[in-house]
Amino acid sequence: MPAILINGQSAEHISVLDRGFQYGDGLFETLRVSAGKPRRWAQHMARLATGCQRLRIAMPEPTLLLSEAMSLCAGEVNGVLKIIVTRGTGERGYAPPAQAVTTRVLSLSSAVIFPAEYYRDGVSVRVCDTRLADNPALAGIKHLNRLEQVLARAEWQDKGESMQAVEGLMLDNNNNVIEGIMSNLFCVQEGGSGPVLKTPLLTHCGVKGITRENIINVAEAAGISVQETTLRLTDLYRSEELFLCNTLMGIWPVRQLEEQHFAVGPMTRQLSQALESLHD
Amino acid sequence: MPAILINGQSAEHISVLDRGFQYGDGLFETLRVSAGKPRRWAQHMARLATGCQRLRIAMPEPTLLLSEAMSLCAGEVNGVLKIIVTRGTGERGYAPPAQAVTTRVLSLSSAVIFPAEYYRDGVSVRVCDTRLADNPALAGIKHLNRLEQVLARAEWQDKGESMQAVEGLMLDNNNNVIEGIMSNLFCVQEGGSGPVLKTPLLTHCGVKGITRENIINVAEAAGISVQETTLRLTDLYRSEELFLCNTLMGIWPVRQLEEQHFAVGPMTRQLSQALESLHD
Repeated sequence: MPAILINGQSAEHISVLDRGFQYGDGLFETLRVSAGKPRRWAQHMARLATGCQRLRIAMPEPTLLLSEAMSLCAGEVNGVLKIIVTRGTGERGYAPPAQAVTTRVLSLSSAVIFPAEYYRDGVSVRVCDTRLADNPALAGIKHLNRLEQVLARAEWQDKGESMQAVEGLMLDNNNNVIEGIMSNLFCVQEGGSGPVLKTPLLTHCGVKGITRENIINVAEAAGISVQETTLRLTDLYRSEELFLCNTLMGIWPVRQLEEQHFAVGPMTRQLSQALESLHD
Repeated sequence: MPAILINGQSAEHISVLDRGFQYGDGLFETLRVSAGKPRRWAQHMARLATGCQRLRIAMPEPTLLLSEAMSLCAGEVNGVLKIIVTRGTGERGYAPPAQAVTTRVLSLSSAVIFPAEYYRDGVSVRVCDTRLADNPALAGIKHLNRLEQVLARAEWQDKGESMQAVEGLMLDNNNNVIEGIMSNLFCVQEGGSGPVLKTPLLTHCGVKGITRENIINVAEAAGISVQETTLRLTDLYRSEELFLCNTLMGIWPVRQLEEQHFAVGPMTRQLSQALESLHD
C-alpha cells in the first residue's frame, strides 16, 4: 500500500461522487522520487497546469502541492509519486459544478527496479491492435480517461520470459504510430546531412511526456536535428535506432519490434547519457 | 447525498487505488426507479454484461446486484439508480491485475422532475464543438471515460432561461451526428412509401441507450420503417420530426435545433405513448 495524502490528509479513500471516479474528469502526473525529492517538479507542474487549463479545472496551488509532496517523499530514496487532480465532487450529470473544488491525491510507492539488460541490450516491443482515437481537445495532456491504454496492455500477459515484449506501440486510426502504452517513442533515421531524430507528432492523440520533452531539448542542444512528424510502422522498421522513454524508465533502447531486430545505436547511447546528466 | 452501497456495504468512499478512479476502468448504468423497483432491469443488465465482456471485467452476479438494488430502492417512489462497476483495485500500471475483484457501487438519488413543457412543446438543442472520437472497441458501451461528454456539456452554462438549449448534439470527426451528450437521437424523414424513423449508427462511437433500443422495438412492432444509418446535420435540418431519448427523460421532442424550428410531430407522439405503455 502506498502512502497517500488526499487534500493534504493522510487517507486512502475518496468519495464515490468524485468526478474522477464518475467520469475520469481529471489529470495525473507520475514523478520519479530520489533523495527525498520529486524530480523535474517544474516541468510536471507545467504540464499539469496545461491540462487543468484545457479541462478548465482549477489548478491546485503549486506551493501547496510541493509542500505536500515534500512531506510525503521525505526520506524516500527511490520512489514514484503519482499526483491525481480531479474536478472534485458534484451532483449527477456531466455539467461541471459552478463551485467545483479540485481534489488532489498524492501517493508515494516504491520504484520498480528495471533489469539492467533493458538499458544495455534493449527491450522487445510489440504492436498493439487497440488504437488511439483522435481527440485534439485531449491530445498531449495526461488525463484520467485511460481505457485505451488498459485495453492495449491487456492484449498480452507478462509471462516473465526474457524475450517477451515489455511494451506495446499504439497507432491512431490513420495508421500513424503515436507512442508506447506507457512511453513515448523516438527513432533515428539517416538524413541528407547526418542522422535525424524523429518522434511522433502528438496534436491529435497521445501524451506529451516530460522525458520526451527533455530528450528533444538535449538533442537540439547537442546539435542533433529533431523532427516531430507523422511516422508509420514502415518508417520505424527502416530506422537505424529506436528507443522508448518515460519519467520512470528514462531511455530504453528497442532491440526488437515484432520480428525485426535493431542494434543499440550511438545516438541512443549519447542521449541516454545526456539525459542522465541533466540537473534536477 | 444519495444512498450508496459499495460491494453491498453502506459506504460513501472508495479506495483511490480503484482502477475506476485511476483510469476510468469500468462501466455504469443509470436506471429509473419507481414504486420501489429499478425499471428495465434485464435490459440494463444485458448492456452491462456486454460492457464487461468487451472490457474483460468480471460481471458481478446479477442476482446479487438485483438484491442490493432492491434493498436500496425499497420505498423509493421516483428515483435514479446508478450502478458503477470497475475492475477493482490494482497495483500501479495499466496491466489488468491477474486476480482482479470487481468493484460495484450502487447509488440512489431522487429523480429530477423535468418541466411538462419539455414533453408538450419540445426542447431547444445546440450543436457542440467537442467531437466524439472513433473507437470501435469502446463504441456502444457505457464506460467510465466520459471526458468528451464533460467538455461538451461545459460549452454552455445553464442560465435558467426558457429558450435555452437543454441538450447538445455531438458529431464524430467525420461530421456525422452521433448522439446527444446524455441522450440518443431520432429523426423522422419522408421516404418513398411513408415516413422513416432514423437514428445514428453507433459502431464507432456513442452509447447504445436502452430507451433507444426500446423505441426501435416499439416502432418496428408498429410497422414503422427504422434505419440505423449515418446522419449529417443537414439531414437533421431536413427532417420532419426530431426527438431525443434516454432512460430518465423518456422522449423529448426537439422544437429547435440551433436556429431551426420543428413542430412536435405525430410519430414522436405515437412513439412517446407506445414507450410509456411498455411493461416494466
